[in-house]
Amino acid sequence: MKQKNDKKITPLSCDWKSPSSKREVKNKNIIIRYRGNFKWRGVKEDKYKNKEDGWSSITRSVLIGNNGEDTRFHVRYFEIQPGGYSSYEWHKHTHVVICLRGKGLVRLDKKRYPINYLDTIYIAPNIKHQLINPYNEPFGFLCIVNSKRDMPKPVK
Amino acid sequence: MKQKNDKKITPLSCDWKSPSSKREVKNKNIIIRYRGNFKWRGVKEDKYKNKEDGWSSITRSVLIGNNGEDTRFHVRYFEIQPGGYSSYEWHKHTHVVICLRGKGLVRLDKKRYPINYLDTIYIAPNIKHQLINPYNEPFGFLCIVNSKRDMPKPVK
Repeated sequence: MKQKNDKKITPLSCDWKSPSSKREVKNKNIIIRYRGNFKWRGVKEDKYKNKEDGWSSITRSVLIGNNGEDTRFHVRYFEIQPGGYSSYEWHKHTHVVICLRGKGLVRLDKKRYPINYLDTIYIAPNIKHQLINPYNEPFGFLCIVNSKRDMPKPVK
Repeated sequence: MKQKNDKKITPLSCDWKSPSSKREVKNKNIIIRYRGNFKWRGVKEDKYKNKEDGWSSITRSVLIGNNGEDTRFHVRYFEIQPGGYSSYEWHKHTHVVICLRGKGLVRLDKKRYPINYLDTIYIAPNIKHQLINPYNEPFGFLCIVNSKRDMPKPVK
């Protein structure tokens, strides 16, 4: 994995917000074309350093939410490489996770559950949670959140 | 296609609301297992009659939104059979459509655009729109909407 973007480290959370690009498309239709390999045309894939405190080997692609869309939710595609994981954290807002690529685990408080293709997880408010990829292929999932949401808190 | 549920005709809209089952899972984690063939364990697939006024051959599976989830959005999986289409309509609330199965067309006002796997469409407020399947295989897509939303209006 490239290490070029070391200076761009953002908060260590499965709920990172990317800087909004604020293109002038507010309230206009948007068609985001899939271009294969879990990448979309015109959607930036944010890369993060390997092995930082509490998280590892994750990328995020914001599909809906960075361009002034009139939705009360944001849609992001996350991908965790083999051996990677999100930070173990909690917050008031909820997550909806839908597995699109490979498989992984979701840690919900003290238990871990397998996630496979198109399994859909609702993570309730204030639940300590983490997404983990102990497998040999990338684990990719949609994560849908309310557009207005509180800051994640790391579990210490 | 079965015609057993002819009495259960609901409003002719791509944004039908199903009766809430109100299971006692409010604010608890939910794991909805995918069981193959674009069906999920415990999720009812609402079937509709073939060839009604304005719409045809569509099913809807509500993944998130019928069980007291604390989200400002609902996540539904729709499937349109070959030759089918949603009603041609408009409303203030927006749609996010993500193609999961087959391919189809989205009509946005006077233009039609192809939709293929993982293409992601943002349909802006008050845009006349319709989802269409002129192909030979099922066309399935996630449709994410605000949980509070206005009633669709058919285009006459």
